[in-house]
Amino acid sequence: MAHIKLLNEELPGIVGLLNYRPETARPLLDLAETLLRGESSLTSGEREIIAASVSYWNGCHFCHTSHAAAAAAHLKSGIGLIDDIKAGLPTTPVSDKLRALLHIAHQVQRNGKNVTEDDIAAARALGATDIELHDTVLIAAAFCMYNRYVDGLGTWAPGPNEAYAEMGERMAHVGYGKY
Amino acid sequence: MAHIKLLNEELPGIVGLLNYRPETARPLLDLAETLLRGESSLTSGEREIIAASVSYWNGCHFCHTSHAAAAAAHLKSGIGLIDDIKAGLPTTPVSDKLRALLHIAHQVQRNGKNVTEDDIAAARALGATDIELHDTVLIAAAFCMYNRYVDGLGTWAPGPNEAYAEMGERMAHVGYGKY
Repeated sequence: MAHIKLLNEELPGIVGLLNYRPETARPLLDLAETLLRGESSLTSGEREIIAASVSYWNGCHFCHTSHAAAAAAHLKSGIGLIDDIKAGLPTTPVSDKLRALLHIAHQVQRNGKNVTEDDIAAARALGATDIELHDTVLIAAAFCMYNRYVDGLGTWAPGPNEAYAEMGERMAHVGYGKY
Repeated sequence: MAHIKLLNEELPGIVGLLNYRPETARPLLDLAETLLRGESSLTSGEREIIAASVSYWNGCHFCHTSHAAAAAAHLKSGIGLIDDIKAGLPTTPVSDKLRALLHIAHQVQRNGKNVTEDDIAAARALGATDIELHDTVLIAAAFCMYNRYVDGLGTWAPGPNEAYAEMGERMAHVGYGKY
């Protein structure tokens, strides 16, 4: 059970929190919609992989599994992607540029100051643009917020990967405008 | 110099980033405005102290100093508050409830899962309400984002506390609606 009395205790993870406090839900959802589904030269599948990876590194089961399911929905890869992200994507074909951006996201997850000039240069050499670097850093930073929000208030989350398949489809194809 | 080519390299910290990417600036500013200046039973001074403390624990000089200056502007305490926050507020009179909420914010800063039932019970015993617990967790989580955004993109920041006094007044009394 969550640390506070939510309006609807059946709603899992961030969903119950968004329902509890609509004043903060609006900007939180607008940010996710822009970062993960807005116009970008990174595909939504790539951006959801960054979001899900950061959430896994932060140990947030709800955010990791739901955003990995959203990535799977974008990529039509099947929900085996959820566990492949945990393992560092050994079997999913991803570009070298995305791997360099994931490294930057991992540095940001630990602390913003960990990002080095060499990390940036390596991603640029593989084709990353300024806006892609910007958005990667902000996606990683934003999930350090969402993850702490979800876990800091002790929300509940469904266990098995299969329970997230439909949620992932909705996140990918309906989006974050409604909750 | 920042890791990416900003539109105006004279703008410090998050200000140059907000100017670079207006699509993400809007929800980032709306969230800060609601959390730090929206209706709440915590004063804006108290909420800015939480924001500044989390930023200090994350080692983000720009966010710590500017939000501590905003707290000083709300509390009319003088900018000595900036260093007092670093030291854990030994000389600033703050309520026991705020100290318990700051402890929860510190747990969130490390990882959301660190918040315990005992931490919540201790804050409740000192008068903290559900909405205050919610907002404390979300302020702490949000500054784990803002701090990583500012430092992960290598932005520059003025050094001395005095350089932030006017910025703090503007943040406190004009707010986060414009940048």
